[in-house]
Amino acid sequence: MTAVDPLRATCPLPRAETEHVLLGHGSGGQLSAGLLRDLILPGLGAASPAGPAQDAAVLKLGDRELVMSTDSFVVSPLFFPGGDIGSLAVHGTVNDVAMMGAEPFALSAAFVIEEGFPLDVLRRVTESIGRAATAAGVPVVTGDTKVVGRGAADGLFVNTTGLGLRLPGAMPSADGARPGDAVVLSGPIGLHGTTVLSVREGLGFETDIASDTRPLHRLVRAMVEAVGPDLHALRDPTRGGLASAVNELAQASEVGVELDETVLPVPPAVAAACDLLGLDPLHVANEGCLVAFVAADRADRLLAAMRSVPEGAGAVRVGTVLDDRSGQVTVRTLLGARRVVDMLIGEQLPRIC
Amino acid sequence: MTAVDPLRATCPLPRAETEHVLLGHGSGGQLSAGLLRDLILPGLGAASPAGPAQDAAVLKLGDRELVMSTDSFVVSPLFFPGGDIGSLAVHGTVNDVAMMGAEPFALSAAFVIEEGFPLDVLRRVTESIGRAATAAGVPVVTGDTKVVGRGAADGLFVNTTGLGLRLPGAMPSADGARPGDAVVLSGPIGLHGTTVLSVREGLGFETDIASDTRPLHRLVRAMVEAVGPDLHALRDPTRGGLASAVNELAQASEVGVELDETVLPVPPAVAAACDLLGLDPLHVANEGCLVAFVAADRADRLLAAMRSVPEGAGAVRVGTVLDDRSGQVTVRTLLGARRVVDMLIGEQLPRIC
Repeated sequence: MTAVDPLRATCPLPRAETEHVLLGHGSGGQLSAGLLRDLILPGLGAASPAGPAQDAAVLKLGDRELVMSTDSFVVSPLFFPGGDIGSLAVHGTVNDVAMMGAEPFALSAAFVIEEGFPLDVLRRVTESIGRAATAAGVPVVTGDTKVVGRGAADGLFVNTTGLGLRLPGAMPSADGARPGDAVVLSGPIGLHGTTVLSVREGLGFETDIASDTRPLHRLVRAMVEAVGPDLHALRDPTRGGLASAVNELAQASEVGVELDETVLPVPPAVAAACDLLGLDPLHVANEGCLVAFVAADRADRLLAAMRSVPEGAGAVRVGTVLDDRSGQVTVRTLLGARRVVDMLIGEQLPRIC
Repeated sequence: MTAVDPLRATCPLPRAETEHVLLGHGSGGQLSAGLLRDLILPGLGAASPAGPAQDAAVLKLGDRELVMSTDSFVVSPLFFPGGDIGSLAVHGTVNDVAMMGAEPFALSAAFVIEEGFPLDVLRRVTESIGRAATAAGVPVVTGDTKVVGRGAADGLFVNTTGLGLRLPGAMPSADGARPGDAVVLSGPIGLHGTTVLSVREGLGFETDIASDTRPLHRLVRAMVEAVGPDLHALRDPTRGGLASAVNELAQASEVGVELDETVLPVPPAVAAACDLLGLDPLHVANEGCLVAFVAADRADRLLAAMRSVPEGAGAVRVGTVLDDRSGQVTVRTLLGARRVVDMLIGEQLPRIC
């Protein structure tokens, strides 16, 4: 089998068919990566510094490292078991800042609202942002509100941008994974995507599952305190799921990764939903877990530290970085076979975040 | 006449009629201020620090002052004489950071795109962001892309969030205006709003006028270098126009302000468009001028510094801070009469930024 680098693979659709934006361009998978690589980054040109694709930017500020991340939230429906667009907007950006090994300290919140949107729903969302920000200890320091006419937006979109400071000793980077590293996952996968889809489509799973949306910066702090610079790479597997996150890190680091399907924590309700819908849990979005690459001899220490905080209670080692430069991710299945796990290609579950 | 504080006035519509978001809630005028005061800030609660309404937040970071501002751009049409949603998104946020007396150093850019949006239009917008950011010397360091289904957004929305560092000696604040201060305007008003409206409605003025969208941080730097802490307050009169900006500063500072209509720079094409449409140029949005409150004995020095940079070439003194606590803004008209100038109440020109 030839190693394929999806970030450099040709577009899965002929160019003539992709002259318009597709839902898949927002999936967090290959189409998203292509749009970023072929259109947005060249368009920004010299105005955007080059570097590996990260969840956030790191900016030198005197002897400090300032981390900045932005995310727009367009989830539909606005409310779902375990959370809503407000808490999601706080957690998503807090987590993107944390994935750079940083302590978040400020958020902005910007609303685009459709004319006619109920004020009491806006109040509920705003209160949810307030509760989530207070619980995370990260204040909303500035904001913006725009209103567009009926039909010009679907209810409410929220953008949050977050700021953080790198923790001492932290230096995780998308290109930091090294051969031999242990791959560690903080908890079960697939909950957020299947929950949102189940509510939206009325599939009935929503009584058994809830989104895992939650802030992960305290978990990251515990991890950095435990192993410092031996924490090589960190990512929260949101859009595109665990498969896309691990592929991105494998490609940026130019290493092969093997995951062990027998230990991947997939809750039964997630497995049932995925089975019914023909989805791969590895491609389903999460909002409350992270994947980490750590020096192998520090993996046990890292796991112990993770399990000492609630959001890392289910932490488990799920794989190993191979001694090759393939940039490829494989899974050893229950039956002992190996299969290649690609990034999500198109769109599996639109508007899940 | 009794002094009215619009920020504390009752809602101009009975509550039963305002249970839904109105276009006016995004106007930057009284309804916007009410939404912020009555719903958004209470919702955020303890998560949002109190203080005068500013264009941006100021965050202590060691011995530095970090400034953060966010803005979503929903302008329709996306392209107009003098600019487009991309350049506007760069300039708008660069200027909001600059209005705190800060030097902007980084931007994020987040896109919400409607499925089916032409890729070549997205490329043009992205390139415009790149050009504007390069020209301003403020890099786009991180970003996000979301796609929503057809009909769930109107083409393209862009959020930018900006970071800056306070310039040494700069301390402008919305509540910093003092009795006796001179009110200085950097250039003509009304160009942006009338241009966008003219293009959208096909009024024909667009051959004579163009948006004034441009970055103002270099102008602010020249102003701070010239008068330092004697620069008491700064604002760019965007949504809601000069009237709303001056009202906000007058109310936050609890001072009366008198503007001199005879010296207000209103270009003939703006005056003609406003005359036809029944608009007050004082309420029309701008994207390339600023209003400053400065100690009276430093006004000439400030004006000279402003006129030394291209974006301040048309700088002029337009008013005075009165020795009262009314929070009211009046205009001395061409005929010598005085009229009260309120904040914009509802919505004059939706989706102009």
